[in-house]
Amino acid sequence: PEPAVRQAAERRQQELTKPPGSLGHLEAIAVRLAALQGTQAPRVDPVRVVVFAADHGVTSEGISAFPAEVTLAMVQNFAAGGAAINALARAAGAELEVVDAGVIQDPGRLGGVIPQRVGPGTANFVEGPAMSTDQCVAALDVGRAAVDRARSAGTRLFVAGEMGIGNTTPATALASALLRLDPVELAGPGTGLDEAGVSHKVKVIRRALALHGDAGADPLETLRCLGGFEIAAMAGAYIAAAHDGIPAVVDGFIATAAALVAVRANPAVADWLFLGHVSAEPGHRRLVAALDDTPLLDLGLRLGEGSGAATAVPLLRSAAAIHREMATFAEAGLT
Amino acid sequence: PEPAVRQAAERRQQELTKPPGSLGHLEAIAVRLAALQGTQAPRVDPVRVVVFAADHGVTSEGISAFPAEVTLAMVQNFAAGGAAINALARAAGAELEVVDAGVIQDPGRLGGVIPQRVGPGTANFVEGPAMSTDQCVAALDVGRAAVDRARSAGTRLFVAGEMGIGNTTPATALASALLRLDPVELAGPGTGLDEAGVSHKVKVIRRALALHGDAGADPLETLRCLGGFEIAAMAGAYIAAAHDGIPAVVDGFIATAAALVAVRANPAVADWLFLGHVSAEPGHRRLVAALDDTPLLDLGLRLGEGSGAATAVPLLRSAAAIHREMATFAEAGLT
Repeated sequence: PEPAVRQAAERRQQELTKPPGSLGHLEAIAVRLAALQGTQAPRVDPVRVVVFAADHGVTSEGISAFPAEVTLAMVQNFAAGGAAINALARAAGAELEVVDAGVIQDPGRLGGVIPQRVGPGTANFVEGPAMSTDQCVAALDVGRAAVDRARSAGTRLFVAGEMGIGNTTPATALASALLRLDPVELAGPGTGLDEAGVSHKVKVIRRALALHGDAGADPLETLRCLGGFEIAAMAGAYIAAAHDGIPAVVDGFIATAAALVAVRANPAVADWLFLGHVSAEPGHRRLVAALDDTPLLDLGLRLGEGSGAATAVPLLRSAAAIHREMATFAEAGLT
Repeated sequence: PEPAVRQAAERRQQELTKPPGSLGHLEAIAVRLAALQGTQAPRVDPVRVVVFAADHGVTSEGISAFPAEVTLAMVQNFAAGGAAINALARAAGAELEVVDAGVIQDPGRLGGVIPQRVGPGTANFVEGPAMSTDQCVAALDVGRAAVDRARSAGTRLFVAGEMGIGNTTPATALASALLRLDPVELAGPGTGLDEAGVSHKVKVIRRALALHGDAGADPLETLRCLGGFEIAAMAGAYIAAAHDGIPAVVDGFIATAAALVAVRANPAVADWLFLGHVSAEPGHRRLVAALDDTPLLDLGLRLGEGSGAATAVPLLRSAAAIHREMATFAEAGLT
């Protein structure tokens, strides 16, 4: 972000043919995009959505409403074009890429699915670290590689999504460790746990936090112990996107946990992240508060896959359009 | 809206490859669109935005931060493509039409501006009715004609916007009369009044309400006494769109006041209206509550022109896309 470009963008928003401030949050988004892209003609297209899929050893503790096999089935659904993110990416005018970062069962060759398997799911983190050091580095690199491909394709706005049955549990564990909160403050139903299920999930996460006691001090060590391959890939993608100067839209609970890891590892990453929406997963508001930004949408979504971020993409496109295309009062002869 | 199609749409939302309810408000929008369009393959395109422009006699009471001449200048800006709604309609993939429903000074021939001048601005409603009966009927017909053109063009989603310096004053007067509220409960800064300006605006509206004492009982008579040409055109457009089976997205404070007139005149209109956003104009929340629907966006916009509704269009497009394009669990072999 370039301060001089930001100042010029703020001035431009005062000079466009509208009462100053009358486009509210869109003006703030426009100014951020202009500053990040270093231009008074910001644009978001081409937009790329990358969904990272992986499985979680902790599912053997019975922390999800769905069995782990559904991760593979949903990857096949992505490949066939039938999932929510397929429809939402198309509707938002975004390219979609799916990455297998480590589903338990190898899906084999599937059209549109990039194999970058770190392993057949993580280890159960109530028994030991979710990932070895090599695996965590490899998973971060999966995200980095996705941003490399996006950059080569000219991507101006990056969206990371995820699929991984059980992954609200590692996301809650990560957030609890990094925010120093008891998991009861953050745990929610995920895809559909009842009250007893959420209580059990809290206990499982407490066991993990006790096992990996001082993990919260180091964000990447916390990620290694409590995260997942797709969560690490997202964190790696946010870090890489910021490094490469590509703004990113953050999705819901899992994505925001990954974003928190990225920002704790490198605070400069925060400048490059737009929060797409606030999720219905109850802990998301705490995560959003930790990132100190205002989400664009509040529509009660709780699906993941990048769905909320993809739904927010047109708002960033609109913000860029007003900044780039509106006439100033002087240009319109309105002085 | 067809009850059988609605029930089938609700069932379909339960069968799509996602945890039931996980797409929140988008699911409700999808079900409404399916029911309104009588199909499980709802679509919003082509989308049409029509901006109705007109002037207001009450501006001579000094109720606006901008002079009345700005209405004409903004119509010229629409024609030149430099206003917010030009950029936002383009970004939302919508066609844009501008209608002169009665700007004080005739703009003459301007590309893309349809002349449907009811008169050179309304009369000052603190001295008498804003419109004659003939004028009010003609202004309602301006909206009807816009919907006729849209229907001929195959429009599946209609957005009405407005431009008219001073028009938060008639909108507040209308809303006060119809909701039986003192204007102090609804009046706000509009394009930028200070506190003293808002107090003055409240007094002007109180004088008008005293003059047209029992107008609130009849919505169209209230419209005639306290409305404006562009507000009547919007009300006429909402009534016509509902009659013709075209869903419409409602913009901010002025548009919602027009929608309230339409719904009071014909309660069945409400089914066809989606509230695009909640405006920063403070009285808008009261108007939204009166229409008993949840706005899609809350971005602090307060510009008018249809800007908030146009910004919300992609969300309706996304809702239609998930309903139309997602696979069911059975189709995906996920049972």
